[in-house]
Amino acid sequence: LTRASGTVTKEKYDVVIVGAGVIGLSCAYHILSQEPSARVLVVEKALSAGQGDTAKSAAAFRNVFTSEVNRLLADTSVDFYSHIQNDLNFPLNQEFVGYLWLLTSEMFEHVSPIIERIRKSGVALKIWEKEELTKILQGARLDVSHQDEEAKMMKLETITHALQGIKCGTIGPEKLVEFFEGEIKKMGAEIHYGERVNSIIVEPTPKLNLAREPLVWQRAMIAGVKTSRDEIRAECTITAAGGWTPILLDPLGIDSHIRTKKRQVFTLRGPKVSALLHTKGFNELGVLPLTLVPPCGIFMKPSRADNSIWTGVSDYIGRAFTFEEDPAAEDDFYTYNIYPVISHYFPHFVDVRPFNKWAGHYDINTVDANPYIFEHTGLIVVVGASGSGIMKADAIGRIAAAAHAKKDIATLYGGKHFKVSRLGVETRNVEPEEFVI
Amino acid sequence: LTRASGTVTKEKYDVVIVGAGVIGLSCAYHILSQEPSARVLVVEKALSAGQGDTAKSAAAFRNVFTSEVNRLLADTSVDFYSHIQNDLNFPLNQEFVGYLWLLTSEMFEHVSPIIERIRKSGVALKIWEKEELTKILQGARLDVSHQDEEAKMMKLETITHALQGIKCGTIGPEKLVEFFEGEIKKMGAEIHYGERVNSIIVEPTPKLNLAREPLVWQRAMIAGVKTSRDEIRAECTITAAGGWTPILLDPLGIDSHIRTKKRQVFTLRGPKVSALLHTKGFNELGVLPLTLVPPCGIFMKPSRADNSIWTGVSDYIGRAFTFEEDPAAEDDFYTYNIYPVISHYFPHFVDVRPFNKWAGHYDINTVDANPYIFEHTGLIVVVGASGSGIMKADAIGRIAAAAHAKKDIATLYGGKHFKVSRLGVETRNVEPEEFVI
Repeated sequence: LTRASGTVTKEKYDVVIVGAGVIGLSCAYHILSQEPSARVLVVEKALSAGQGDTAKSAAAFRNVFTSEVNRLLADTSVDFYSHIQNDLNFPLNQEFVGYLWLLTSEMFEHVSPIIERIRKSGVALKIWEKEELTKILQGARLDVSHQDEEAKMMKLETITHALQGIKCGTIGPEKLVEFFEGEIKKMGAEIHYGERVNSIIVEPTPKLNLAREPLVWQRAMIAGVKTSRDEIRAECTITAAGGWTPILLDPLGIDSHIRTKKRQVFTLRGPKVSALLHTKGFNELGVLPLTLVPPCGIFMKPSRADNSIWTGVSDYIGRAFTFEEDPAAEDDFYTYNIYPVISHYFPHFVDVRPFNKWAGHYDINTVDANPYIFEHTGLIVVVGASGSGIMKADAIGRIAAAAHAKKDIATLYGGKHFKVSRLGVETRNVEPEEFVI
Repeated sequence: LTRASGTVTKEKYDVVIVGAGVIGLSCAYHILSQEPSARVLVVEKALSAGQGDTAKSAAAFRNVFTSEVNRLLADTSVDFYSHIQNDLNFPLNQEFVGYLWLLTSEMFEHVSPIIERIRKSGVALKIWEKEELTKILQGARLDVSHQDEEAKMMKLETITHALQGIKCGTIGPEKLVEFFEGEIKKMGAEIHYGERVNSIIVEPTPKLNLAREPLVWQRAMIAGVKTSRDEIRAECTITAAGGWTPILLDPLGIDSHIRTKKRQVFTLRGPKVSALLHTKGFNELGVLPLTLVPPCGIFMKPSRADNSIWTGVSDYIGRAFTFEEDPAAEDDFYTYNIYPVISHYFPHFVDVRPFNKWAGHYDINTVDANPYIFEHTGLIVVVGASGSGIMKADAIGRIAAAAHAKKDIATLYGGKHFKVSRLGVETRNVEPEEFVI
């Protein structure tokens, strides 16, 4: 073994964050809020913030969960967003339109005891009976006739009830990103746009400059990132790269503990769609809540800004785990999976084709659908928001900042405490979510 | 929606098992032992059994663990293998050469309380002091001199103690495979060799023969496999494909919960190596135990059959997660990672280069290093043996057979009970292993 002469490299940054999506920016924001002197760099391959899966999101939020972790992460983040909008006067387009789960009698029976428990935990809920729903949802076809061969084949069932979550709604991801980005710049963060992280630097400590370092008998640690422009060294590297994370971590042999799936959004417009969008009776805004349609949870999201309803659905078995640089939404997916269901219950959609569509990725924790935040000798992995990244981003940033500061407890917005290790791997403590319909 | 005319397909098999490695064969063996009338087919891409990662294994076993799951799975399997060899008179080349962990003083201090707890659980252990070791391990260099610049650079430390596990040793994987294969053929299993499973069939139930089935509003289930020769339909599909499993399951969007890494074995020969191999004093066979060398757990495995010592080591950070059809062992890996350590403590290896080498894969559960056995509407995934597939194969087969029979409890060899759900995903109940040195 021969040792080349080593040079001591001064770390330029305390923290380099991979990704300027909503999660990366929230991490930067909370690290700088807690440690104002920290030298923070955010590296982003897109030309501006929030252009990846953040921009592709349906951007809805809710507080209706049985799991304490789900409720804490979502509820405190939603409160923080209200604080930004109301107290800091930075509009986020946060609108409390509500969530509306349409239920068949079988679903209602299954979910009733769970609803009672959620209500007891202080979550505002309203249950609607079919008669009321029929009056409010004008033009909807809640009954499934036994003469309807197509409905029979599709096993569609009559909607007998609906559950409305009150502290639920939609938000503008681009506004949230703008808020975080503006604040971290004021606090002195650097952001490099258009710079792609190609790899994460693994080094032995101490560095011996041997061939093929780190060798198995050396202690390996993460020393920064190699980008399309530069080698960036930092005391701590944080990956906040969502569904792209396995592509960064697999070459290192570090498990990101998530799988990536494409998720699609289709937007629908027309006079009848507009009438449905402006359904009155559910909220003060006089619009349809974010509505979930059985049997497979297709969502219909009110979008006042473009006078449209957005739709999409999570597909499970049969949809591959993959990451694509530029995923495309599929017309056929709308035609075969979504259209037959929503046009049945809501004839407003008959013959309506999407006027816009796009696709992004979920970074899915397939075990408990909550984020992972774990440390690995110089690396903090923040991943697995599982499609709830926007609704939980504030809490996730606070917990990651606590992990960075080597604190055991994070303080969420409103003062609630959260044990950082609950989102770790070996130390994980996340209850299974029972409200899954 | 238009429905093509459907045909009712009779399932030809009750169970199709993907993979005739030691895990797949054990599954077949125990399913047929419990359900003799089951129509079982094993499909294997290689031309005979156990040619994949089973053949590439170092094939050692031990019962030295703190985790109950580790101990139960390994210990009962080892007992079953002894039963095959001693009671059924089918030689498996099972040799109780022992495991020998060489320990620095720091390691010994760390591990002492853990050793005591393992001993109290009934595991036979012996602790060796340096003086005794020096006498037995002739030619070894247990002391690290402070004048030794290379040892200093490598942070090698003096070996002060060793821990020997008694009910530990090595086995012939090809013999174990031969046993299982012979038995399942007697019990009526079919095995198709040289037939590659290209994909797993996902179908809605009921099948409507619509384009792009299953659609999100249908109930999807696994109906069999498509192979290089045929479409094979079965009531239950079992994947026992080790590190290849994600390649089968990712396209379906089903998480296999494991990552795959290459693992290499190098074999060493020569007069001095032979002398070390035939070290007397540790066991009745008069050979070196399977010995683990600090600081990174390089193993030296006695191989009497070819008068050699095999070596290898698990590399973690820096070794990518990948699966290769035909992974190759790397000379450099031996040269830089293994040689400097083993040749330091055992000058027997100075200037010895491998006379043979090969590489296989580990299917690693990065959370608790134990197998996953879980069901998913017609699919049973058996994966994640994490390099302990041979030492746990019997128990894994019994638990998979119980899962197939929809039993909650599996009976392991010797009569111990094991709750099948402990190896599931959401229901998982595996204690962290504390004996990690």
